[in-house]
Amino acid sequence: MEQLKAKIRKEGRVLPGNILLVDQFLNQQVDTELLLDMAEFWYERFKDKKITKVMTIEASGIAIAVFVASRFGVPLLFAKKYSSTNVTRESHEVNIYSYTKQVSYNVAISKRLLTSDDTVLIIDDFLANGQALKGLLDLCRSAGASVAGVGIAIEKAFQNGREAVKDFNVDISSLAIVEALDAETGEIRFSGDEVKGEERA
Amino acid sequence: MEQLKAKIRKEGRVLPGNILLVDQFLNQQVDTELLLDMAEFWYERFKDKKITKVMTIEASGIAIAVFVASRFGVPLLFAKKYSSTNVTRESHEVNIYSYTKQVSYNVAISKRLLTSDDTVLIIDDFLANGQALKGLLDLCRSAGASVAGVGIAIEKAFQNGREAVKDFNVDISSLAIVEALDAETGEIRFSGDEVKGEERA
Repeated sequence: MEQLKAKIRKEGRVLPGNILLVDQFLNQQVDTELLLDMAEFWYERFKDKKITKVMTIEASGIAIAVFVASRFGVPLLFAKKYSSTNVTRESHEVNIYSYTKQVSYNVAISKRLLTSDDTVLIIDDFLANGQALKGLLDLCRSAGASVAGVGIAIEKAFQNGREAVKDFNVDISSLAIVEALDAETGEIRFSGDEVKGEERA
Repeated sequence: MEQLKAKIRKEGRVLPGNILLVDQFLNQQVDTELLLDMAEFWYERFKDKKITKVMTIEASGIAIAVFVASRFGVPLLFAKKYSSTNVTRESHEVNIYSYTKQVSYNVAISKRLLTSDDTVLIIDDFLANGQALKGLLDLCRSAGASVAGVGIAIEKAFQNGREAVKDFNVDISSLAIVEALDAETGEIRFSGDEVKGEERA
């Protein structure tokens, strides 16, 4: 999706450790015009899927997902993070390991709010190693909910998130797929970008 | 604001410990139609204030605040929580004590993103004891940003949040002010609700 890629090229910053900083427009400061365009894109992509709920995980997915939910005219549902296990008979719960923060945390969603009557569109800001997405897919599986698709703003393809969730066989629509980041030059290479001859050498 | 109060009466649940559960429409599942109405209310209230940014704190304020930001046509900015101190020269940071969870946490916002050029409208889902709001006001003070007002969805008046931030002398617009909760009867009494004679006895 060109608007997002252009924004990443203009305002994204590459930091050491394969970090792509997009806090100026996506996950600390949020450009609402861009979010409306993103929501429209996914609406066109998934509008025939009879979506009943849009689902994400707190925190930085929420701003994006709530615009998508509004565009579909369905509720947003966000899974909550807990540092300790908080199992009740009222919640579906999974454990997720964060490679970024090197901690594991529990994520829960109310059994009242996600059921086998639901057809879900999952939305998140990043797909990196896929652990957060796998957690959301596990929650849907626990609830017996159908997953119609996944919308990701920025996929870091080199971290193999798709591979981590391939058993779920789910349709993933990423708006910007990053193939490589170079912290020294600041270069961000997207899938489909032409690589010049001298850069291959 | 009648739409919100009606929704709380219909779908809110009172739990022991003065907890008002609104996870069915506000802070786990989110009713986007209601959020649009709330955003419109605050827009009418603060539209003359030359707001440059709408600000909240992760996680459950984000869904509400991003609609408000969109209505004003300005960016959303959300402060991030950290379990440990993470002081860098790049962030304004404050420590907040959560009476609900009985832990303290640090909250940070980038110095690039909040500056003395900003006039901020702060939005959050709850005002209880006021510690989260005080933290946001402290961040704005550190940044030299002006605070044009505060929009709160649900104020639990009996927890004295206004008192906690009175030194900031800020204009607080709460959409639903709860005077009392009764977990046994499930009663929710709003400010302005008529109290019948027999209930006073």
